[in-house]
Formats: sequence, C-alpha cells, structure tokens
Amino acid sequence: MNTFESPALADYCLDVARRARAASSALGLLGTAAKNRWLIKSAELLISRTAAVLEANGRDLAHAPDYGLDSAAIDRLRLNESRIAEIASALRQVANLPDPIGEVIEGSRRPNGLEITKVRVPLGVVFFIYESRPNVTADAAAICIKSGNAVILRGGKEAIHSSQSIIECLQAAAEETGLPQDAVQFITTPDREAVGHLLKLDEWIDVAIPRGGEGLIRRVVEEARMPVIKHFDGNCHIFVDQHADFDMALRIIENSKCQRMGVCNALESLVVHRGIAKDFLPKLDAQLAKYPIELRGCITTCQILPTARPASDEDWSREYLGPILSVLVVDSLEEAILHINRYGSHHTDAIITNDLKASRQFTAAIDSAAVMVNASTRFNDGGEFGFGAEIGISTDKFHARGPCGLRELTTYKYIVQGDGQIRP
Amino acid sequence: MNTFESPALADYCLDVARRARAASSALGLLGTAAKNRWLIKSAELLISRTAAVLEANGRDLAHAPDYGLDSAAIDRLRLNESRIAEIASALRQVANLPDPIGEVIEGSRRPNGLEITKVRVPLGVVFFIYESRPNVTADAAAICIKSGNAVILRGGKEAIHSSQSIIECLQAAAEETGLPQDAVQFITTPDREAVGHLLKLDEWIDVAIPRGGEGLIRRVVEEARMPVIKHFDGNCHIFVDQHADFDMALRIIENSKCQRMGVCNALESLVVHRGIAKDFLPKLDAQLAKYPIELRGCITTCQILPTARPASDEDWSREYLGPILSVLVVDSLEEAILHINRYGSHHTDAIITNDLKASRQFTAAIDSAAVMVNASTRFNDGGEFGFGAEIGISTDKFHARGPCGLRELTTYKYIVQGDGQIRP
Repeated sequence: MNTFESPALADYCLDVARRARAASSALGLLGTAAKNRWLIKSAELLISRTAAVLEANGRDLAHAPDYGLDSAAIDRLRLNESRIAEIASALRQVANLPDPIGEVIEGSRRPNGLEITKVRVPLGVVFFIYESRPNVTADAAAICIKSGNAVILRGGKEAIHSSQSIIECLQAAAEETGLPQDAVQFITTPDREAVGHLLKLDEWIDVAIPRGGEGLIRRVVEEARMPVIKHFDGNCHIFVDQHADFDMALRIIENSKCQRMGVCNALESLVVHRGIAKDFLPKLDAQLAKYPIELRGCITTCQILPTARPASDEDWSREYLGPILSVLVVDSLEEAILHINRYGSHHTDAIITNDLKASRQFTAAIDSAAVMVNASTRFNDGGEFGFGAEIGISTDKFHARGPCGLRELTTYKYIVQGDGQIRP
Repeated sequence: MNTFESPALADYCLDVARRARAASSALGLLGTAAKNRWLIKSAELLISRTAAVLEANGRDLAHAPDYGLDSAAIDRLRLNESRIAEIASALRQVANLPDPIGEVIEGSRRPNGLEITKVRVPLGVVFFIYESRPNVTADAAAICIKSGNAVILRGGKEAIHSSQSIIECLQAAAEETGLPQDAVQFITTPDREAVGHLLKLDEWIDVAIPRGGEGLIRRVVEEARMPVIKHFDGNCHIFVDQHADFDMALRIIENSKCQRMGVCNALESLVVHRGIAKDFLPKLDAQLAKYPIELRGCITTCQILPTARPASDEDWSREYLGPILSVLVVDSLEEAILHINRYGSHHTDAIITNDLKASRQFTAAIDSAAVMVNASTRFNDGGEFGFGAEIGISTDKFHARGPCGLRELTTYKYIVQGDGQIRP
C-alpha cells in the first residue's frame, strides 16, 4: 500500500491502463484451454494458500472498527476456510462455462460473393470498482479473463489485505500458466484520486463497472469518460390482477419481499386490482404477519387495512431495501402499467394472473429489464437465468440490460472474406 | 422558426422530450403493418407535395451564400424531382425491411420450469442531430420509427426549410395513418443552445446520434448525458502481404482509395511487406498515375519510389479524406498488425494475401469493426452488408460496432413465464 504524490499517481494510473491494454491484445487471442488452466490453477493456489489469505483477512478485520463497519459489513468481510473454498469453487465453475469468444453470432454470403461473419470478441480492458467483499476480487477477475478482457481491479480499502492476498494467488497462477502478466492488475494505493485518474483514461480502458452503494455508482457515472455498466435502483413491483390465484399471489409476494430484503430484485411495491382488493389485502396482511413489515398504502388500501400507514407520493418511487412495502389499489390493468412504467426503475416487475390477455398486455407494455408472469421477482439474476456467472444486473438499455454474464463483457467484429471484390 | 428566451427554450426542449417519451410507449406496441402504412403514406405525400418541397428547398438555396456553403455543399443541399423520388423510394425500402421488434433473440426453459425469452424491443427515444443534407430528415425518421423509436430531429440551419417541408409530409402521414403524433418531432428553433438542453435530458432521451463533421460529434460526445452512437475517424489500412496477388492488390487499392475519397471507409494508409515492396510499389505508382494522388512514404518507400514524399509520424494517424495515401514498408505480418492496431482507428482494415495462415492471423489480431480479406475497404457499409438501411458506422465497441441499421437501434427485455415459482 503505497501512496503517491499527485503527478506520480497519474503516471501510475496511466501505466496500469497501458499495461492492461497491452495484455488485452494477447488475451483476446488466447485459447479457451489457456484461460481455463489459469482459472483452475488460481483455485488450487487459493486453497493451498488458505492460511495466508486468512492471515491477511485477519488484518482487515482488525482494522474494521476504524472504518466504522457494522456487524453485517464485518460479516461480509470475514473469510474462513469454507468461504475460501467457495471462492475457489466459483473459479472452477467459470472454467466450466462455455467460452463466449469466437462465437459466430451470424453470417451471410452477399450477392457479390463476399462472406461476412459477425464474430464475438472481448471488449478489451475492464475497470472494476467495488466495495468491501473480498470474494468479488476473484469473481470479477474470473469473469473478465474468461471473456478475454484484461481487468483493473479497485477494491474497497476495508478489504485491501484480503483482496491483495487473493490477487497474489491469481497473479501467481498467471505466471505458472502463461497468462499475460498484466491481465489482472490490482490498484494498491488507497488514494481516492486513483479512481478519478483511471476513469479519464478512455483511450486505454473500454468499460467501467462499479459495484457497491449508490454513492460509488453515481461518482463513477459522473466521472467516467468510458461507458459504464451499472446498476441503479431496483424498485420492483408485483401487480395482482383481478384474475389472480390468491394462494400463488401470496406465496410469490412473500418470496419476493421477504426471502432477502436488501437485494435489488426484492419486491418494493405492490399494485392490486380494485376488483379483488377487499378480499385479497386482508389475506396478504395475515400472510406477512410473521415478518415485521410495514405496509404503506393508498387511501383505499388504508380503508381496507387499518394497520397500513398512508403512503406519500414519494413512497411510489422508493427502493426500501428493507421491511417496508408500498401498496396501491388501481382500477385496471392499464392503470397498473402506467403506474409501474412511471414510478418503477425498469428493473423487475411481475404480474400474477390466470388471464392470458392480461399477461400478454403486461409483458408487452412494461418497459423493464425483466417482466415476470406468475413468478417471484427474485428470479431476475444471472445464476437463475443460467448465465453461470454474473457481474451485476444492468438497469441500462444500452449494450447490456438485466443480468450481465460473460457475453455482456464482449463486443463483435465483422470479418469479410472475398476474392478480389471491389465496389462498383 | 421561433427563437426563445433561455428559460422558455429549456421548457420547450423538455416538452419535446416528454412528448417523445410518451409517443415511444405507444410506438413500442405498434404492429409492423401500422409502421409500414406510415412509411408508404409518407412516400406518397412526398411525391404529391413535390412542388411545395422544392419551393422550400429554393428558399434554403437562396440563403446558402449567407451560410458560406461551397458548391459541393450547395449541391448536397439541392433537391429536384428525381432526388425527392429517391427519398420516397428509400422510405418504401424501409417498409420492405423485416421489423426487428418482437424478435425472440433466444430463450430457454430452466430446471424449475421457468420459461425465459429474450425479446427485441426499441431503445425508446432517439435524438438525431445532423448537418445540411435534407434527405437525412426522412431517412433518419424512417429508421427510427421502423425500429419502434420516437425520434427528435435537429437538422442543420442551412436546410431548415427543406427539412421542415419534408417533416410536414411525415407528420401528415402520421395523422392519416394513426401513428402517435409526437413520434417524429423536428426542432424548429435555430438556437444552438437547444441541442445542449436536449443532450442533458437523459431521463427522457435514450440515445443521441450525431451525423456530420468532427466538431458536431465532439460537441455531442462532450455534452450528452445519454449514450451516443457515433462515428469518429476512419483511418483505414490495406496490408499487402508477401503472398498477395499483385493484380488483385492493385485493383482493390485503387477501388478503396479512389472510388470515393471523402468517405469513412476509403483507404488512407497502405502497409506493404518488405519481401515484395521493390516489385510492387512501382506497379502501384503506375496504377494510381491517372489520379492526382500524393504518396507519403517511409524511408524504404521513398527509396523505391522517388516521387513519394517522406511521411511524418503524424501521417500514420491521419484520415486524409482526400488524394493522399501514406505508405509503410514492414518486415513482417506481425509488424503490420502492430502498426495497424496502434495507428488505425479500428474502423476498416484489409489484408491482400493468398496465404491462409496470414489471413487467419490478420483477422484474429486486428481490432477493428470490419476486417477484410481480399476485398475493398469500401464494403464496410450497411447497404453492402445487407442491412437495407443505415444510420451510420459506429467506431465504438459498446452496444453497436460497425454499420448501424434497424437492429442497432434496439435493446431487449427478458420475459419470464412461470406458474407460481418462488426462489428457495
């Protein structure tokens, strides 16, 4: 952990970015077997160096009070033998995934005989900025390398020793297996300005991916000159249609809201058709009684459920990430769609219905990364979609939308083969 | 053409953007037939209102000297009956293209029975900023509407009357065919600040597309808060390998350089293998003798061709867009690849060779939107690729690379159908 004077810091960042670019040229040409050898060797070294990683983690844990981490944050920071085994296992899983690079996405022969293929290639250099969980260090590196990208990692200072000890395993594996030395680089300086310098280097870095709290993401979006793959809010809705199966609706709402409250695909706002509100809402209240969940309702909701508090206009836009659920009664499917498209965050929205027409209308009109019919919002996830590995869930429409796996870290090029064609 | 005071201008821009967003919701759900009816009716109205369009164009031509347009620019601005017929014909061609919206890109059934489909949907609202050619007004609107997007058009002031008379046809067609009224909007104020206001409205506008000179593009990239689909340089290379067919190489170089010099996919820099340089370069000199082309060469080139001027280091990065060609002799394919990846603009680069290994190595290692083997660089074009219509050629890697047609103006969403699944 060195700190730098300002010009030296800028030079250091430029050097890191240039090395990453050079490594990326070699990485893009690397075969699948070589990338997988690195992944498997990294997993082996993580296991064989468990003691060293735990020792480094112990140093981070010792400093945790200085950073004001609460007990949940300390728990996320803490490694043990089984967590290290999980990190190693995740690396092996990425080795088992199909290599996206080289895929012929499509192709055609033109009337003049030119043969055109659209081939998947890496983006180039990824700058990955994340907060305290040390397992992200290995996960992010694995996904970037498997998709042929060089990666510059910037982890949170709270986990810096743990991350660095994991990086040492990954870099030693690179040396042993012939992966370009600068394919995985870790920013060691705690200097906050390093991120700012790197975010300006769009000539060398192709994409920035922040993973963490809203403050981090907003800073990266504001400062980055390269494109950003990001995740903002997940204000997810469920609409209970008048033709819903109540038992199914209750089960899905409970799962969407309560299975894990602090995640982006958890339910935040319930919309209920007026035709069933009076029958359904008391059952919902009973279903959720075992959880300490506060309901914030519209006027009708509050009339039906005296325990509900009145919702303010702000509530409709909020991502609570905790034990609060807003509830709105609407007159029609159309009103539900307008409300969700207006107040939602275009992340995950679901309808519970047995009516085919309503289901078709909802899935066509809702402008969200994932639109669910009769399923929990919690399924909007790279693992659940079968991607095998995930760097996050994009709330953008550009380039990648929804869960981002290996393919979302790629682009394509056109290869055009001829035998002397010229343009008339 | 109204001008506004500053707060009124900002309000006007916000109103335009909001109307576009509202129109885009309806457009995204519109069937193919309705979009095609609008395209065909627009073509009809353009033809039947030819006199009015020519009258408006006459007013623009009368003002052309005030804007300092040269004769080439005036020629691009000038409409006549046959040019209007071409614009109408282009609209009909877009009607004939397949509708990208609703395409199921892929899908799967998960082990828990969830059925996931990835469906192509519009981006939403496109802000299209272009310079003087009035035909772009119709072309851009056609591509945006066919791909389900609402469009805000901002044309150059030099063509404002022509563009506005074309817009009147498109909007009248919208009214007659039931297309949402604000699907196609045209910014009528000549105020330069209108562009700046609109570029800040990333909440309402999904993508900005500038088409014109470098100054325009840099301004848009600098100011836009939404993603930009853009075209920077086209410093295109041809590498003549030692195993090249000389006749083919000469024919392809002549076509790539001379068929149209001022376009982005024209040849700017030639790289020649040392093994053939002495035999090949004099033939090249003879082949190009009928054109007034200046060769700027490396030391070896200048030794072989006394007519060549010495190239400076700057020349290797230049996009001349005119009668200059830089020529570099290299010792190997590897050196050619390094040079092209370093100095090129990742747009279009070609190899001329009969050697399969060289062709494979070149296409794998060159990091460009289109990599050609034994074909003219001029083929990197949406029309030549079979896209049917094109909004430009992207030099970015993110979202869209190379020629951008209808599909490049789309994104996707995941539709997940279940029968009550919850996450364990």
